[in-house]
Order: sequence, then C-alpha cells, then structure tokens
Amino acid sequence: MHMILELYDCEAGQFDDVQWVEQVMVGAAKAANATIISVSFNKFNPIGISGVVVISESHLTIHTWPEYKYAAIDIFTCGDVLDGDAAVNYLKTAFESDRIDVRRLDRGQI
Amino acid sequence: MHMILELYDCEAGQFDDVQWVEQVMVGAAKAANATIISVSFNKFNPIGISGVVVISESHLTIHTWPEYKYAAIDIFTCGDVLDGDAAVNYLKTAFESDRIDVRRLDRGQI
Repeated sequence: MHMILELYDCEAGQFDDVQWVEQVMVGAAKAANATIISVSFNKFNPIGISGVVVISESHLTIHTWPEYKYAAIDIFTCGDVLDGDAAVNYLKTAFESDRIDVRRLDRGQI
Repeated sequence: MHMILELYDCEAGQFDDVQWVEQVMVGAAKAANATIISVSFNKFNPIGISGVVVISESHLTIHTWPEYKYAAIDIFTCGDVLDGDAAVNYLKTAFESDRIDVRRLDRGQI
C-alpha cells in the first residue's frame, strides 16, 4: 500500500528543525510497527527538510515547505502487517496539522 | 512532480543483484541531472530489493519483486530542473522492462 499524504497548516514550532522532524518520522514508523533500517535527513538552505526512513517493509519519506506550513509525506508498505493509519494520526498530531489529504495508491498489477 | 512508475516484465538477469540495482538507480538519478546526497539499498530474504536514492531535489525509491519481474519506482522532484523522462528511459532500458506504467501526481496545493 502506498499512502500519499499532504499535511497543510502545520503549526508545530519546530517544523524546520531537521533533528525534530527526523524524530517525528521515526516515531511515525514505530507507530506503524515498522522495523527501521536506516534514516537520511537533510536541511535545505534557507528552509525546508527532506528525509527518508527506510524500513524493512519499504519506506517513509517527507519533504517540507515551512514557508507554506506544508509537508508532502509518503508511506510505502509491503504486506498487511503495518498500521498506516496509526502513522498518519501520529504525524497529524506531531506536526499540528489542521488539514490532511490522504490518497491510497495500489501499486502494481501482480 | 511525483512520478509513480510500475515496471513490468523486467528481463534483466541481474534484477535481484542489490549492487547492480543500486548502480541503476544512481544512474537514473544522474540521467535526470540530480545531485545525489545518499543511498540506502537492502536485499530481502529470499528475494527482493528495496532502495532509496536521496537527492538534493528530493528522492528516488525502488522496491522489486523479482518473482514477478516487477519493480515499483518513485521519482519525487522539487522544482523544474530535473529531467524525469530521462530517468524513466534509463530505467526502462537498464531493467529491460517490456511495459511501464507512469502516473504523474501533483503534490500539495500551495
């Protein structure tokens, strides 16, 4: 399952703090019961964060536009073990987003 | 721009070789003129590869199901600098895919 999230109106004060955003994304992966393999987060100049959490069940990614209080997040999981909705709720609360759009894509006709 | 690729009928003999798949994904990023920040690739037991190429313009990801000759690939780019179509052509040739589905998602109404 591939969940495509758009988080708008993110009011969290640390929204441009790369370490904190990494913590949140790791927390979301754990909330979904994922097994974390590696993380890679980077801060852009002047603002914006890009990050990936590689999990044994696939990946989570985030790209933020703090100037618009907006984050684009993907949660890609293989199998039916993970709780994607738990990750979404975790992210909404942590980023203090007032509006989330969620799209669910089926991947591959196999 | 977020390009969602489904590569079917991948006939490349090295399709379950993690180092080779990593090379192909790095090659695709370079074909798109991306600046590579980090890579993380893993092989699953018994088969299957999962990988991320973090680029300064966002990311590329891949998950493979060699038993179905299928790969799910995402190319997420910020701005208009990168040549996503060049990456797609590079991937199709390298993986010897006989059929690719490409979806282009707009991300965020900002």
